[in-house]
Amino acid sequence: MSSEPQAAGPLSGLLVIDLTRVLAGPYATMVLADLGARVIKVEAPGVGDDARQFPPFLAAGDSGYFASINCGKESIALNLKASADLAILEALLARADVLVENFRPGTMEKLGLSYEVLKERFPRLIYAAASGFGHTGPESSRPAYDLVVQAMGGLMSMTGQPDNPPTRVGTSIGDIAAGMFTVIGIQAALIDRQRTGLGQKVDVAMLDCQLAILESAIARYQVTGQNPTPLGSRHPAITPFQAFRCADRAIVIAAGNDNLWAACRDALGLQSLSADPRYASVDSRNSNQPALAEAIETRLLTAPADHWLALLAAAGVPSGPINGVAEAIAQPQVQARNMLVETETPGGAPLKIAGNPVKLSGHADPASRRPAPRLDADRAKILAELGSADKMKSLAELDTLAD
Amino acid sequence: MSSEPQAAGPLSGLLVIDLTRVLAGPYATMVLADLGARVIKVEAPGVGDDARQFPPFLAAGDSGYFASINCGKESIALNLKASADLAILEALLARADVLVENFRPGTMEKLGLSYEVLKERFPRLIYAAASGFGHTGPESSRPAYDLVVQAMGGLMSMTGQPDNPPTRVGTSIGDIAAGMFTVIGIQAALIDRQRTGLGQKVDVAMLDCQLAILESAIARYQVTGQNPTPLGSRHPAITPFQAFRCADRAIVIAAGNDNLWAACRDALGLQSLSADPRYASVDSRNSNQPALAEAIETRLLTAPADHWLALLAAAGVPSGPINGVAEAIAQPQVQARNMLVETETPGGAPLKIAGNPVKLSGHADPASRRPAPRLDADRAKILAELGSADKMKSLAELDTLAD
Repeated sequence: MSSEPQAAGPLSGLLVIDLTRVLAGPYATMVLADLGARVIKVEAPGVGDDARQFPPFLAAGDSGYFASINCGKESIALNLKASADLAILEALLARADVLVENFRPGTMEKLGLSYEVLKERFPRLIYAAASGFGHTGPESSRPAYDLVVQAMGGLMSMTGQPDNPPTRVGTSIGDIAAGMFTVIGIQAALIDRQRTGLGQKVDVAMLDCQLAILESAIARYQVTGQNPTPLGSRHPAITPFQAFRCADRAIVIAAGNDNLWAACRDALGLQSLSADPRYASVDSRNSNQPALAEAIETRLLTAPADHWLALLAAAGVPSGPINGVAEAIAQPQVQARNMLVETETPGGAPLKIAGNPVKLSGHADPASRRPAPRLDADRAKILAELGSADKMKSLAELDTLAD
Repeated sequence: MSSEPQAAGPLSGLLVIDLTRVLAGPYATMVLADLGARVIKVEAPGVGDDARQFPPFLAAGDSGYFASINCGKESIALNLKASADLAILEALLARADVLVENFRPGTMEKLGLSYEVLKERFPRLIYAAASGFGHTGPESSRPAYDLVVQAMGGLMSMTGQPDNPPTRVGTSIGDIAAGMFTVIGIQAALIDRQRTGLGQKVDVAMLDCQLAILESAIARYQVTGQNPTPLGSRHPAITPFQAFRCADRAIVIAAGNDNLWAACRDALGLQSLSADPRYASVDSRNSNQPALAEAIETRLLTAPADHWLALLAAAGVPSGPINGVAEAIAQPQVQARNMLVETETPGGAPLKIAGNPVKLSGHADPASRRPAPRLDADRAKILAELGSADKMKSLAELDTLAD
């Protein structure tokens, strides 16, 4: 599989030099690779990306975690404190469209690779930094992991059951949201470069991104003067919109407006509630949520989940099972949308990973990905290309050729 | 404030026609507006976007929810089932770079506005659709809300305290992740259009995006054969990495590797644990998480959170308070990064909303946003521009002029 070229995508020709480790940065460059970019991952000799040591392992030292986030990339090991290796990085940057790093702010300066230095030497280069707190502000140098920004950014205070211990979102949304905004910033800078001919710096902070995904919570705080609190599975402004137990397991129902509530009520055989003024409007349903939830759950507990889901689906009421990962990836819709693709770990073990959620009519959506690279796997090829004037091209050069 | 032009950004000149409602689509077009695009929101006459009816309200009918997600956009009310209004939409599409819609699949076909029809008439137009389940597959037409895809996509099964009722992420991450991937797809299509001269269809499903943010969970399921389960505030592969109670309130500590664990241990005065083989490696700490957590929490309960946070910060250990929204937005770092900006509701009430997390060296980061529009507020201006050949331009036209 590794000899196949990456499928052509909208970002084909884009050359990305990737100094990132663990998650926020590697997630961003994986999205770019899925869109067709060439991503050269520059890793520390010896150990490489820390994520190579993260479980689950398919064999000793063969991380499924690393493989999930780094498929389709190339790897070269460079010691950036050694001048010969630094020269290789600089040769790569001279050809590249984009540099991505997620070091603690100040690290690139110590390496002599600050944005100001790189901008002078490589004016078309887009420099993207994903960090915990950003490259400005009093806490810029403070260290962060996902959990820290989920906590400091407010999301953790709104997630969980009421009066329970603090609850983290079960995926690293602190890193992943920052990875997505880093991609958005890089692509915006690429579009800008078409006009200006110049690169720029993209500075994304994980903490900032947590603020950016709080939805209406900031407005709610301002209007009520109260901090939003965890609501279990409920929505703060829509009722019924939560999980309910059935005879065998729980399901979710999301009746987002009056028509859907009427359809839900009738599908569940609760027509008796139609005359109840407590449930006549979104506002009154919100105010009487506990009583309404009890009425619905009492009914749902009389039959299994599949019975109710079939009735709700027939009535067009948004609803569904609460799937584990096994059930989620086995869904026919997920299969039909190619959202589970084949790859291999660096050690050669087969592994399925999430597909590309950006479906484009102009490009194929491959059902496999090149494996995540072994550390330094692409050194010889990369050095040979650097030695040959016309072998490694950036998107900027391709654009110039096309003019 | 509404008379100020939108600040120039990397997407200045981009003309987006926005048919979206509630959240996933409006979030995407808000990100585009924050990057400088002109977004014309086309709403149903009479009520407009459903989100105008969502609390919190700053005055009767003046939704802070709507204002949070629609600042910087223009509004025109069009009845797409009436031929005169449909003609206005078509005139807008003739000028536009991007059309975004988040209807249930099939709705645009019923309006005579399928991608196939629009592609013939407007070959440079990028058509972006955000839907619950996508425009292909057996469940394409199934209705969805955020809660449904959080449940069906697996995230809910991994979020919460062990053995508790199902727990939803406290923000609508089902919509928001889809909104972000819609932006990523639109920008990728814009970059592609520079080469091909042609638009394309971007088809993003909320369910697909939930799969795409599961991080290592799909790999963990394949390796262990077990569904990942909720872990409260813990990380599945790093210890200590969770919330702990102190004498007054809880904090988070994320000691992501051996060095950080050693620093954490010493900062908390737990040097006695340094010789304990149970805590010598990431693997052994993961295996002995309950005992280690108890040892740490017993210590932390002897003093207040601020005491421990100061010691951990001095030692460089990633850690922080669990902030409510009030504390999150009041942080000096959030203020310094301009992550809380001023706007107004459609009714003219002042409101602070999250800023733009994409910080670009080439563009200013304004501290205010134009208000979210009143329904149909920009009709006269938009119709006047349509009547004048050179008033409303797309990015594609601007590019042509620049050549």
